[in-house]
Amino acid sequence: MEGGAAATTPAALPYYVAFSQLLGLTLVAMTGAWLGLYRGGIAWESDLQFNAHPLCMVIGLIFLQGNALLVYRVFRNEAKRTTKVLHGLLHIFALVIALVGLVAVFDYHRKKGYADLYSLHSWCGILVFVLYFVQWLVGFSFFLFPGASFSLRSRYRPQHIFFGATIFLLSVGTALLGLKEALLFNLGGKYSAFEPEGVLANVLGLLLACFGGAVLYILTRADWKRPSQAEEQALSMDFKTLTEGDSPGSQ
Amino acid sequence: MEGGAAATTPAALPYYVAFSQLLGLTLVAMTGAWLGLYRGGIAWESDLQFNAHPLCMVIGLIFLQGNALLVYRVFRNEAKRTTKVLHGLLHIFALVIALVGLVAVFDYHRKKGYADLYSLHSWCGILVFVLYFVQWLVGFSFFLFPGASFSLRSRYRPQHIFFGATIFLLSVGTALLGLKEALLFNLGGKYSAFEPEGVLANVLGLLLACFGGAVLYILTRADWKRPSQAEEQALSMDFKTLTEGDSPGSQ
Repeated sequence: MEGGAAATTPAALPYYVAFSQLLGLTLVAMTGAWLGLYRGGIAWESDLQFNAHPLCMVIGLIFLQGNALLVYRVFRNEAKRTTKVLHGLLHIFALVIALVGLVAVFDYHRKKGYADLYSLHSWCGILVFVLYFVQWLVGFSFFLFPGASFSLRSRYRPQHIFFGATIFLLSVGTALLGLKEALLFNLGGKYSAFEPEGVLANVLGLLLACFGGAVLYILTRADWKRPSQAEEQALSMDFKTLTEGDSPGSQ
Repeated sequence: MEGGAAATTPAALPYYVAFSQLLGLTLVAMTGAWLGLYRGGIAWESDLQFNAHPLCMVIGLIFLQGNALLVYRVFRNEAKRTTKVLHGLLHIFALVIALVGLVAVFDYHRKKGYADLYSLHSWCGILVFVLYFVQWLVGFSFFLFPGASFSLRSRYRPQHIFFGATIFLLSVGTALLGLKEALLFNLGGKYSAFEPEGVLANVLGLLLACFGGAVLYILTRADWKRPSQAEEQALSMDFKTLTEGDSPGSQ
């Protein structure tokens, strides 16, 4: 994306990435609009605290997590090490924002005396959060921490990619369940009368699914992957640098 | 899986396939158990008609659709043409069973005077059904109908695989939304008291997500794909046979 080696960027890739970003930003804006228009907005110290939950989750575990997965496609001509650090950082931001969203809902439930962790949404959500944290730790140990050998990294990489994509898709599914829960709790019978809030939230749900699909498409298209030769060369250089004591985490 | 050329089957693949089948069958049995134990069972001419909907959808659009995707991994040493016909047939069975499930819910709504197609579950469901039907038609035209050229098939194949996997995952997501809807409509406040039905349905939801993950893992693991050389050879032989007038649909 950044001049110079642009000749090796597939022609259609930037358009697909732009489309995914348009979807992602619309998603975040629409979540904000839904909470602002129909749920009274967001605040920490009131009943509006709950509303911090969907917004944080959509920003962290949907938009940022999705973009963290795309980093290797978008910055395909940058140094592998820089891309790797950006990938790790985006996932940290996503994790921290998701943690704020998690605290918001548990704190809200506590103040209201509501039960925790009884619904399918909450079970899936906790599963996503734990898997996401473990994936980050294991990914860090293998790819950024200077201990893992080249062959260990090569063997773990496909697993890391598969579980990364799966956790992202499970996050999208969990968001859909949460959205549905919020609609049925609040709209009740009015949902079936095609209330504007219901229609807006349904469109938001479809956009969530489309963003998931768009990220998955860009991620899995074989001819858009970083050329494996270049990747392995970069990795082995990376490993060489790492064994010489220059940690990529330090830059 | 069938003796003879077994030497080329990756050692771990049968275990993963067996695990996916165990998950899939547990899923179908558990859906039946849920409907039987807590929803009064299944019948066509009564209020129980609704219950045909979740059961048909889980059998058709989850279990059979998932297995149709796995056919090329499981029967990796069979003739490509046989596998292709089995893939198409499993998808037809899935489509017909899903259609029965669709008729069940629309008929039930009509008899009860309930509104149709207002919820996110129903929007996603219609989207899945339309995409599934279109994918089947396009897949049939390209891969079984003797008109498409070898190069056209090669170009379309990755798209077919991506959209196939995406439609399957969207089916899983739609099932989760439907399950959640059924729980909130029927259990209401009792859901948060950890009623047995709620816990069983939550476990069913997690199993649905796990089955989706297991199918995706088997499907995407690079070293479990049919070797591309053999595949292309088989395809080109296929094409040769087809242009000689021997349709694979005829056997």
